[in-house]
Parts: sequence; C-alpha cells; structure tokens
Amino acid sequence: MNNPKEKPANATSHVSGYTQAQALDAADKLIHFRDRFSIPENLIYLDGNSLGVLPALAQARVTKTLTQEWGKDLITSWNKANWLTLPQTVGDKIAPLLGADSGTVVVADSTSINLFKALSAALNINDKRKKIISEKNNFPTDLYIAEGVIKQMARSHELILLESTDDVITALRSNNDDVAVLMLTHINYRTGAMYDIKKITAAAHANNVLMLWDLAHSAGAVPLELADADVDFAVGCGYKYLNGGPGAPAFLYVAPKHQGGHTQPLSGWFGHSEPFAFASKYKPSKNIAQYLCGTPPVLSMVALDEALNVWADVDMQTVRQKSLALTDFFIECTSALCTEFDIHVLTPFEHENRGSQVSLSCPTNGNAVMQALIARNVIGDFRPPDILRFGFTPLYTRYVDVWNAAQILSDVLQTRYWDKPEFTKSMGAV
Amino acid sequence: MNNPKEKPANATSHVSGYTQAQALDAADKLIHFRDRFSIPENLIYLDGNSLGVLPALAQARVTKTLTQEWGKDLITSWNKANWLTLPQTVGDKIAPLLGADSGTVVVADSTSINLFKALSAALNINDKRKKIISEKNNFPTDLYIAEGVIKQMARSHELILLESTDDVITALRSNNDDVAVLMLTHINYRTGAMYDIKKITAAAHANNVLMLWDLAHSAGAVPLELADADVDFAVGCGYKYLNGGPGAPAFLYVAPKHQGGHTQPLSGWFGHSEPFAFASKYKPSKNIAQYLCGTPPVLSMVALDEALNVWADVDMQTVRQKSLALTDFFIECTSALCTEFDIHVLTPFEHENRGSQVSLSCPTNGNAVMQALIARNVIGDFRPPDILRFGFTPLYTRYVDVWNAAQILSDVLQTRYWDKPEFTKSMGAV
Repeated sequence: MNNPKEKPANATSHVSGYTQAQALDAADKLIHFRDRFSIPENLIYLDGNSLGVLPALAQARVTKTLTQEWGKDLITSWNKANWLTLPQTVGDKIAPLLGADSGTVVVADSTSINLFKALSAALNINDKRKKIISEKNNFPTDLYIAEGVIKQMARSHELILLESTDDVITALRSNNDDVAVLMLTHINYRTGAMYDIKKITAAAHANNVLMLWDLAHSAGAVPLELADADVDFAVGCGYKYLNGGPGAPAFLYVAPKHQGGHTQPLSGWFGHSEPFAFASKYKPSKNIAQYLCGTPPVLSMVALDEALNVWADVDMQTVRQKSLALTDFFIECTSALCTEFDIHVLTPFEHENRGSQVSLSCPTNGNAVMQALIARNVIGDFRPPDILRFGFTPLYTRYVDVWNAAQILSDVLQTRYWDKPEFTKSMGAV
Repeated sequence: MNNPKEKPANATSHVSGYTQAQALDAADKLIHFRDRFSIPENLIYLDGNSLGVLPALAQARVTKTLTQEWGKDLITSWNKANWLTLPQTVGDKIAPLLGADSGTVVVADSTSINLFKALSAALNINDKRKKIISEKNNFPTDLYIAEGVIKQMARSHELILLESTDDVITALRSNNDDVAVLMLTHINYRTGAMYDIKKITAAAHANNVLMLWDLAHSAGAVPLELADADVDFAVGCGYKYLNGGPGAPAFLYVAPKHQGGHTQPLSGWFGHSEPFAFASKYKPSKNIAQYLCGTPPVLSMVALDEALNVWADVDMQTVRQKSLALTDFFIECTSALCTEFDIHVLTPFEHENRGSQVSLSCPTNGNAVMQALIARNVIGDFRPPDILRFGFTPLYTRYVDVWNAAQILSDVLQTRYWDKPEFTKSMGAV
C-alpha cells in the first residue's frame, strides 16, 4: 500500500489503535449528534455517502403525516399542514448548508430531473453558445441527462468531455467563445477528489460561461458558499449526507438572476404563478417556484424535512474538521495495517482537494473484498473497476468505527476471507 | 335545479331518503372494502378524486420500510427489499386496472413529468408531423407541459386547442396530415365528462396520429382497456382513486412497440440498460425501464404499493356499476332536494359519457357554498369558475354518505349557511 506523499496538516502523529480512537471520540464536539440517529448495533456504516442513516425522529414524523395529516385531515392538509409549500420550506432548510440565501433552493423530483431543468435553463440563457463542458469521470447520469437535453433541443449543441480533471481551466480557454455552460460534480463519486468551487466558477465567468455544480457528495459533507462564489445553478440529492431517506427528493439551487424567466421546459403547474387559477396558458412564477413541475411526494418530503431539522444545530466548519480528521485517520490506519497488500489510496491526501470519503484502489478481487467486508459488518461499497469506497459522515461516524473498519479490512486481506464464492457475485448499489 | 334530461338506465326509481340508502348499502357487494381504509368518523368524504383516503395497512408498511429496511438493512435494501425494481413491480400492479399487460407500466416521478416523457417520445416517433391537438379544457398542467416540450424542441411544433369536446374527430380530419399526437384527458377534471377511448384512439390511428391519454381521473374509477384499444401512451396519478397518498408517484403506460428506443429526453441512469456499469455513454434499456429517469422516492413508492394491494381483489366491472349507481343517486337526491336553487348538473347524464364524479354548477357564491359544506363535514372541492365537484369512490363511499351529502347541501342552501365571511375566502386544492 502507498503511504501519504504529503503529511496531512491535522493528522494524528501515529497509529496507536483503539485507545487512540477512543480518546478522539471523547474529545469529539459532534459525538452527541450520533444519538439523533437510529444506527444498528455492531454495524460499521461507512456508506452514508450512498444512503444516510435513519434520523431518530423520522418515524414519528412520517407516522404523523400518515395518520393525522393524510388519514384524518385529508385534502385540507395541503394548506393546514403546509404540504403545498414543502418544496420551498424544505429548500430553505438546505440553503444554509449550501451557503445560499432563502428563496434560492427548492426540493423536488430527482437529481437527474433537476439537472435537466438547470442545464436546459443554462443553454436557454446563454443561447448564443453551443458547448457544454463536463468530464468523462462525472457521475454517469449527469452525462446521460446532458445527452438527453442536447438531443431534445436539436440545435447543434455539443458535449465536450474532459479526460482528466486538470484541464478544466485550459479547456475553457481553448474552446474560447462557444462554451455555454460548465457542468461539474464538486466531489467525484469514485475518488472523493474535490474541486475549488470559487476558483472554477470565477474561471467560467471570466469566459462568459455559466456554472452548474452537482453537489450530491457535498451537501452536508463540506461547507459550501454558493452565493459568495456567484454560482449559477447547483443540484444535489437528499439521501446521502442529508439523511433524507431512500430516494429522497433532490434539491436545486438557482441564483436569483436566473429566476422567473420561462427558462426551463418542465413547466408543470407547480411552477405556474397561479397554479390554482387553472388557466390554460403557462405563466411562470417570478421566483424559484418556476423550477417546480408536478405535485411533490409528500411522505418522502416530510422524512427529508425531519432529517434537515438535525442540521439546524450543526456548524459546518466543525463538520469539516471532523471529516478531515476521520479520513486522515482512516488513511493512516489502513496505510499502517495493510502495507503488504496491493491496495492504494485514490483520494487526494491534500485537504483542500478531498471530500468526505476515502477510496482505495484494490485491483485484485476488489468486489469480493468489499462483499467480504460487508459480511463482516463493515458497510462500504464497490465502484467499477476496482474501487473500495468508504464514506465518512461526521454526524454519526466515530473514530472507533474507523479503527475497527481498518482492522477488519486488514484481517479480510490477511486471512483471504474474501476468497469465497458468495463474495464474487456482483451487487447493485445506489 | 335542472332534472335529468334522460333517465339513467340503472337509476333507482325515486328518492325515498335514508332508508333507501341503507338498503342500497346492505345490498352493496363492495361494502366490505370500506374496512380496508382508515376513514375519519362523521366525515362524508367526496374528494377521493383529489386525494384518496389512507389504506388501513399503509402505516404498518411504511413503518417497516422506515425502521427495518432503511433503519436496519440500509443500503442492502436496494436489493434485499427490492427497492430497485419498485418502478416496475408497482407498475405491474396498476397494469390490470388499465387493461394493460405486465411490462407496459412504470411508476415514477409526477404525472406532469411522465407527460413530458410521453409527449416528447410521441413527437420523436411521429417526427414528420408538427401538430399536437388537445382541448382548451384539458387539465392545465397537461397544456403547460405541451408548451414546455414545444419550446424546448423549437422545431415549429404547434399546440392546437379545441374549444369544445365535440370536434375531436372533425379536428383530426381537418388538420389532415400534420397532426403528430392527440393528447386528451379521458375524464374531464371539471365536469366529469368521459371520452370513448377505443373510438377516439381508432380515429387518431386512422389519421396516423399517435394517441396519448391522461388517466388521472380514470385509473381505479372506471374499467380501462388500453392494450385492446391500441393506445400508444398514457399517464396518470397515484394519489386519487388509487389511494397512494399525497403526491404519490405517477404512472406511465407505453405500448410495447414504443419501448426501447432513444425516444424520451429525461435519460437518467434508471433508464440505462446497465445503470450499475457506470458507463459514460447513455444506452437506453430495451424495455419499459427506458422511461425511468432518477432514483425513486421509496417511502412514497411503498405507500402506493400497499394501496395497490387492495385492488388485487377488486372487480372493475363491479366498481363501475356502483360508481354509476352512486352518481345517479346523488344526481337524483340533489335534483329532488335542491329544486328551487340556481344550481345545475354539469356531468353528463348518459352513463357512457360519465366518469365517477358529479359536478354541479353553482353560479351564485359557489366557493362559499363549498366552504360551508366542508365546515359541515361534507368534503368536496371547488373549481373555478363556479363548480362544486364531488368524487364518488366505490371502494369506500356509501349510499348513506350520498344521501347525507345531498341533504346537507340542501340545508346549506336553504338556510343560507354559506353566507358567512369565513366561507368567502378562497382555498387552494390539489
């Protein structure tokens, strides 16, 4: 295994095992947040970057919506329980986590669909230009949606995919005046590598290019400053670090200057300025509501709403410090314990380039190793071609979990525990 | 009040009040289904065409998904609890209610978004033609979405809106060979008037026009025969007669011949032939899954799934008989009790043209009358400009509810109970 090329600034100085982990937990300012989640005993869950855990109050909240709001109050709950404005009120709870102002975030639909709205809007606004720049290693659905938008618009738009993450700024310059929008994912789902939002957005704007960020692995994981960075559009999902539940509705950030026009094609009634006038002509809302389309899935919305109440008391700088300390500690532990094996760290060692996950390349039997870990109650996930992916969620991951995970990984490799037929079958994940 | 111009075939011969209603309930073959729902006591709920009531087993099902599947099994539930295939398995439960085959219906997103997919696909398939025909009185979001699709495609498409429902076939002929798709709502949300799907679809096909039906007020309300009628596309929602809960995900029917191509622009990863290969190029699934886009909202999906289990035991012909008997009875009761007032029936008297609702035009203070009814525990809704709308859901509406509703309406009018300031304020509804 490779060792850190550069010593992370805040890293612990050596690996002394379980006792050290316990001491770190004892000093952890966020440790009490773990009680606000329902986490299975004896499970080391390092997959909160795929599906966050159940907030302790979610069941009571959803039950109230089912039995009282739906069951007893029925149709009146659209007003009485404020179901109608959930897309905006839940959006306003996400806004502070994005460094965004109230009225600039809505919660609706899926990340893919919100991306379709945002990308269409960007092309409609910057309509003299025809190129979308993204990168080959972006999350696939982002690229599929760009393909779909281009095909539908049929106006000779073109998707330029960069091979590496290094040449974003060069690519902006070399495509000079024909780039309409730069669409990037802030934290890469495979490697955990992170872009500098402010720097890249400024470079895009310097070239008159609109900036669209996918924050699926960022919201609730790292501090964000969308308003300050003058970002045009951003999307992200509610079911990872935000803990909104499986397939929770997604969010969409739209800078105030891009709100109110007839800019996005999913022009359903929830985006109308007067949806209950039942007019036959579409008249877009003048605010962020214009990016809504159909009726929101209330049960999934209220679970996310409840999950977001936890974040009201969270300081994102403290989250970031713990996130870096957890990932540093995991890199150190695995580096120390797995020296003799053919695995290496894919995630950047430099703090400024790292999200809240650690990805290990495991070229030999990577999928089987992950299945074996899962069988030993360490939940991460496998991403092709050879990536063991571990997410670190500062609100509920403990340092003892990190230590135990590294030790179990070492044991799985040492004892060739992965070498069983039941671990070779592949597994889908979301 | 107007009286039925034509005597409905199965109508009861006279209105003899509560005793008669009790006798009808005693003879009702569907009466036991009422126990499978949780209905507030003393409430006459005639708004199941807006939001269906809570199925008795929904709470247990959602709780299981929250506490066991999400809470304990976490990410493994995508496979273990079959979350991944919910769009198809829930769709397959709706299929029989539509007269559709397994593999032709998916549940996903909202009705508006599914309409965007279907309308885009129809225009992509019938791509030599430029006109969409619909009607001015279609549900607004359907028209808004058509506007959005046309604007996005920017290929000189045109939306032709018919003024009346009479001239659909004439309009098809007079626009001869430039109509790509006919988009109609089967049962009108305002009046409850119903089209003949087989006849209109055949007329569309005779003119080489694709047929797209909105079944929002039809699924679970009337028997449907989509496969037999050779319908191309259909959409509808899960939260009305299907009782799937507020904002439940919507359904999309696609005839087998239109499945598998790269035809719809919301090309997210759930529509990819191999979503977990994480390929950078979109390759549409060869089956109905190609009409999926993003990750499904699981909590809302399982509530709908549970609601659909009730329908496994339901014969739609029996539902239709009771629906007609309930609406006939309501028309008779109100006709008898409200003779001296300025209200008249908008819903067609002829059975073959009527859905499962009765709409009364109430030109004087219509909204206040509805608010007064709601205050008296009779829940219908008001639709501009002057419509009192009452939905009749055969699985849980009793004849005594119908009689009581008519009597309370009569009393509200007789005593001018509606003439209070609190009833004049307007109210949104979904």
